[in-house]
Amino acid sequence: MKLVMAQINPLIGDLDGNTQKVLDSMEYARKVDAKIVLLPELTICGYPPEDLVFHDAFIDSMEQHIDQIVEASKGLGVFVGLARRNFDHGEKRLLNSAAVIYDGKLLGFQDKWLLPNYDVFNERRYFSSGTKTGIWEMFGTRIGCVICEDIWQHAGYVTDVRYARDPIDALVEHKPDLLVNLTASPYQYQKPHVRVKVCRKAAQTLKCPVMLCCQVGANDQIIFDGYSIAVDKEGNLRQLAKGFQEDLMVCDFSAKACPVPFEYNQEQDLFKALVLGVHDYCHKSGFKKACFGLSGGIDSTLVACIAKEALGAENVLGVCMPSRYSSEGSVKDAVALAKNLGIQHKVIEIEPVFAQYLDTLGPHFGEMEHDVTEENIQARIRGMILMALSNKFGDIVLSTGNKSELALGYCTLYGDMAGGLGVIADVKKTVVYDLCRWYNRKEEIIPQAIIDKPPSAELRHGQIDLDSLPDYGIVDAVLEGYVENYMPIDQIVEHYKIPKDVVRGLIRKIHAAEYKRRQGPPVLRISKKSFGVGRVYPIVQGWI
Amino acid sequence: MKLVMAQINPLIGDLDGNTQKVLDSMEYARKVDAKIVLLPELTICGYPPEDLVFHDAFIDSMEQHIDQIVEASKGLGVFVGLARRNFDHGEKRLLNSAAVIYDGKLLGFQDKWLLPNYDVFNERRYFSSGTKTGIWEMFGTRIGCVICEDIWQHAGYVTDVRYARDPIDALVEHKPDLLVNLTASPYQYQKPHVRVKVCRKAAQTLKCPVMLCCQVGANDQIIFDGYSIAVDKEGNLRQLAKGFQEDLMVCDFSAKACPVPFEYNQEQDLFKALVLGVHDYCHKSGFKKACFGLSGGIDSTLVACIAKEALGAENVLGVCMPSRYSSEGSVKDAVALAKNLGIQHKVIEIEPVFAQYLDTLGPHFGEMEHDVTEENIQARIRGMILMALSNKFGDIVLSTGNKSELALGYCTLYGDMAGGLGVIADVKKTVVYDLCRWYNRKEEIIPQAIIDKPPSAELRHGQIDLDSLPDYGIVDAVLEGYVENYMPIDQIVEHYKIPKDVVRGLIRKIHAAEYKRRQGPPVLRISKKSFGVGRVYPIVQGWI
Repeated sequence: MKLVMAQINPLIGDLDGNTQKVLDSMEYARKVDAKIVLLPELTICGYPPEDLVFHDAFIDSMEQHIDQIVEASKGLGVFVGLARRNFDHGEKRLLNSAAVIYDGKLLGFQDKWLLPNYDVFNERRYFSSGTKTGIWEMFGTRIGCVICEDIWQHAGYVTDVRYARDPIDALVEHKPDLLVNLTASPYQYQKPHVRVKVCRKAAQTLKCPVMLCCQVGANDQIIFDGYSIAVDKEGNLRQLAKGFQEDLMVCDFSAKACPVPFEYNQEQDLFKALVLGVHDYCHKSGFKKACFGLSGGIDSTLVACIAKEALGAENVLGVCMPSRYSSEGSVKDAVALAKNLGIQHKVIEIEPVFAQYLDTLGPHFGEMEHDVTEENIQARIRGMILMALSNKFGDIVLSTGNKSELALGYCTLYGDMAGGLGVIADVKKTVVYDLCRWYNRKEEIIPQAIIDKPPSAELRHGQIDLDSLPDYGIVDAVLEGYVENYMPIDQIVEHYKIPKDVVRGLIRKIHAAEYKRRQGPPVLRISKKSFGVGRVYPIVQGWI
Repeated sequence: MKLVMAQINPLIGDLDGNTQKVLDSMEYARKVDAKIVLLPELTICGYPPEDLVFHDAFIDSMEQHIDQIVEASKGLGVFVGLARRNFDHGEKRLLNSAAVIYDGKLLGFQDKWLLPNYDVFNERRYFSSGTKTGIWEMFGTRIGCVICEDIWQHAGYVTDVRYARDPIDALVEHKPDLLVNLTASPYQYQKPHVRVKVCRKAAQTLKCPVMLCCQVGANDQIIFDGYSIAVDKEGNLRQLAKGFQEDLMVCDFSAKACPVPFEYNQEQDLFKALVLGVHDYCHKSGFKKACFGLSGGIDSTLVACIAKEALGAENVLGVCMPSRYSSEGSVKDAVALAKNLGIQHKVIEIEPVFAQYLDTLGPHFGEMEHDVTEENIQARIRGMILMALSNKFGDIVLSTGNKSELALGYCTLYGDMAGGLGVIADVKKTVVYDLCRWYNRKEEIIPQAIIDKPPSAELRHGQIDLDSLPDYGIVDAVLEGYVENYMPIDQIVEHYKIPKDVVRGLIRKIHAAEYKRRQGPPVLRISKKSFGVGRVYPIVQGWI
C-alpha cells in the first residue's frame, strides 16, 4: 500500500489556501494510487499560528475546513493537523491535534501529548496536553499517530525537559503496523540527521515503519527545511523528501527497498535555508523586489547573493552610498559584484545630506569633538535613503548585519539595522566568510578583494573593525559558548583558550546591546539560539 | 505579633542589591519589633528574570545570597523568593520558590504550584510546578505560604486557564493561622480591587488573615504598582501599602483594627504608573536625562508631563522640529508648554536637511508625485536629530506615539517611532486626552489650545488625522474590543454600534502594522493587552 507524504509550505492563517494544498495532495494520491495522505503539524493554519488561535472565528473556521477535507476523502485516509477546542479537562482551552479522516468520515482526533515550551516553542501558552492514544485502522492497516515533539523524548533528544509521559512507550501495547508523525521542525545545522535517528528509535521500539511528514517553508523568523523521512521497521532510512521545497513523496512502506544514504552539505544547506527564508518572507507578504545597502563589504555581498537566488537578479537592487570616509575600492568592488551577479545597482552619495546634518546640528554641538554621533548619522542617512526607495518603489529593505555585530552592538539602530528582514543576522561573521567562499566554489562571482580586505564600517578615516573589537574568531567562539550553549565563563576560557577578561568584556557587550537588538528587524533563525525569536532577556538588568 | 511587608523595587538580576534590600527590611523589622518579614515573588532576582535563569551561575549565586539572609536571620522569620534547582520530577529543571527562613535556619522551600503561561507570563518556559504544601511554624504561629498565581484560581479570577490543583484548597486541612503570599502582579486599571477580593476569598476559605506582599517598580515594559494587602480572617481589608513606591508596611495581624476603605483614582494611578515606568526604565539603566520631539500636539505634551514628574524638569528636553508644513501654533504651543512645565526646549528646523534629501533623491524619484515617502522622510529626520542629541549628550530618547496610532500603523518606523521607550504606546488616544485634562485639573499647565486642536501629523499641507482615519472614539472602541478583549467582529459591531466595514477595515490595518510594531521601542504596559510584551502575532499571515 502506498502513502503520500505531503510536505507542504503553508502561509500562516491562510486556511483556504492551506486547505487547498491538502485537497491537491489528496488528488495527487488518487493519481498515483496511494491510499493514505500524511500532512505536517497544524496543517490548516500553518506552524506557528501564535495568538491567532485566541480568536474564536479562527478555530471555528479551521474546523469547517476539516469538514471540507472529510467530504473529499472518499477512498482515502488522511492525517491532517489543526488546532481545536479542548472540551475535556486540562489547563488550556485548545489542543494541537491531528484529524484522522478515512473514506468520507472523521474517525476522530489524535492530540499532541508533549508540548515544547522552550527556545522558539511556546505551546503551553495555547494548548493542553493530549491524554489518549490508540490505533487508527485504515485499509486493514493499524496505524499509530503522534505529533512532532511526541517522538523526540523517546530517543533521548530532549535534553532540558523531562516529560512525565512518553507517547511512543504508550503505543507499544497497541502494536501498530505503522507510525505516522505530523511535524513542524525548524531548520538547524545537522538536524535532519537527528530526525532520522529519532525515527529509527521509535521504529525499533514499535517494530514498525515510521513516516515523519515535515512542514517546509519559512514563517517570519523560523525556517522549516522539509526533508520528510520514511524509515523501515528496522529503523533504516528508506526515503527522504527534498529539502527546502514542497514535495509530495510517495512511500510504499510494505515494499522491499534498499536503505538510502543521507547526504548533507553544510554550506549548501545553510545557504538554501537563507534563500528560502528571504523568498518566503518576501513572497508571502507580497514583496517582489528588494533593495539593500551594497557597501563592498563581505556582509552585504552575502546578502546580495542570497537575494539574487531568492528573488531573481532582476528584482534585486544594491545601493552604494559612499561617504567621505569610503575607500575607493568599496564602490568599485560593489559595482563589480553587482555586475557579476547581474543585479541592479545605484550609487547615491550621502555627503551632501551628511554635511547638511552637521550644519543643522553644529550650533547645538558647539565645539564638541566628532564621536560615534557622527558615525551613526552616516549609517542612519543610508538607512533613510533605503527606506525612501522602499516607500517610493515598493521594494522591501533587507538588513545586512551579521550575528557577531548584532551580538556586540557594533551596528547602528535605525541605520544599518533598518530594514524589513535581518537576512544574515543569525550568521556569525566567520560563517559569512565560509558561505562566500562556498558561493565562489566554481568561479569567482564574488571579487576576491571583498573576501580579502579587513572588515570595516568606514565611518571614519582608516577605521577597521579590529580597532574596536577582538578578532571575529574570538567573538564567534564566545557567541557559540555563551549565547548558543549557555557555557559558564570559566568553561569558555578553558574550551576556547581565550583570556578571561576578553570573555567577560564580550559578554558585557552582548548584554549591553540588548536594547538595540530589540528594535532590529526579524532575524532569519539558523542556529541553536538566534537573537530573534527564542531568546528572551531583560533590557534593563544588573546581572552583567 | 507584628510582620513587615517589604514591598521592594528590585533591579532584575542585581542579586547583591536586591539581597541588600532584604537585609535592610530585616533590620527595619528588628527596629519596629516585628518578627516576620515577607517579601515579593522572586525577590533575589526580581520579576521577571527571563532567560537569565538559564545560566547556572545565576542560580548558584541566588542560592548563595539566600545563605547570607539565613545567617542574618537570628530571631526573625523571613519568606523570600528565588529561582532554584528542581531535583525532583517535573518537566523543567527549575522551581519558582519561597525560601522559608527562621531564626538562623533555612526551614525549607515552598514552591509555586500554579505557573501562569498567558499574556505577559511565560513561567512554563522555566519552571516546574510545586507539588507539596504544608505549614511553617514560627513563634508559635502556623503559617501557610503560596506564591502569586497560587491564590487566584481559588477566587475564580483566572478565566482562561483551568489548573488541575488548587493550593488554597490543599491548605484547608492544615488549618493555618496565617496565609502569606509572595507576589509580582503587573499594574492594570482596577486590579488592586481585584487583588483584595482574591485575598478575601482565601481568608474566608482558610479562616485566617492573608498577607499579600507585592513587588513594586517597573522592569522593562512591565509596571508593578505595589499596593500590598493585609486582610483579616473575615476577609476585610485591614491595611494597604503605598502604590507606585517602596513601602515597609508593619502589620499586626492579631490586633483588632477597623477595616479600611479602598480609594482609587483612575487617572491619577495611570499617570503614576507611567511616571514610575519612565523613572525606573531610565534610572535602572543609568539615564538621568531624556529628550523627545515636542510638536505642540497632545501626545508629546503628555509625554512631557510624565517625563517631568519622572526625571525632574531640569533633566527633560523637548525638541521642536518644525518643517514647511508645521502650523504657526505648533511651535508656539510647544514653547508655552515647556515654559509652564519648566522643562528645557530647543527649536531645530528640519527644512534644510529635508530639502537636501529631496535634492539627493530627486534624480532617482524623477517625476513621481510626493506621497508617504516624503512624509516619512520628515518624521525620520526628526528621529535622527533626536538620536544625534542622544548620542552626543547621553539623553535617552522617549518615543511619543500612542496606542491608537501604533495599532493602525499611523506612525513612521525609524521616525516618530524612534526612541528608547514608548512612554504612552499602550495609552489609547482618547485616554491621552483624559490624562491631559486630569493633569490640568487644578491649573492650565497644558495650554488649552493643545487640547482643543484637531490631531495632525503635520507632514503635508493642512493634513489632519481625520483625513485618513475614523474618529479616535471609533478606533479606540475597536482596539478595546478586538485587541484587548478578543471580541468577534459581529459582537464589536453590535456592542459599539460601528458599521461592519469600518470594523473590518480597522482590524485589517491592525494586522498590517504588525511589522512596524515589531521594531518599535519597548512599550510601557498599562492595559489588559499591550502591543509590547504579552501579545505574539505573526507578521506574515493570510488570516486577515
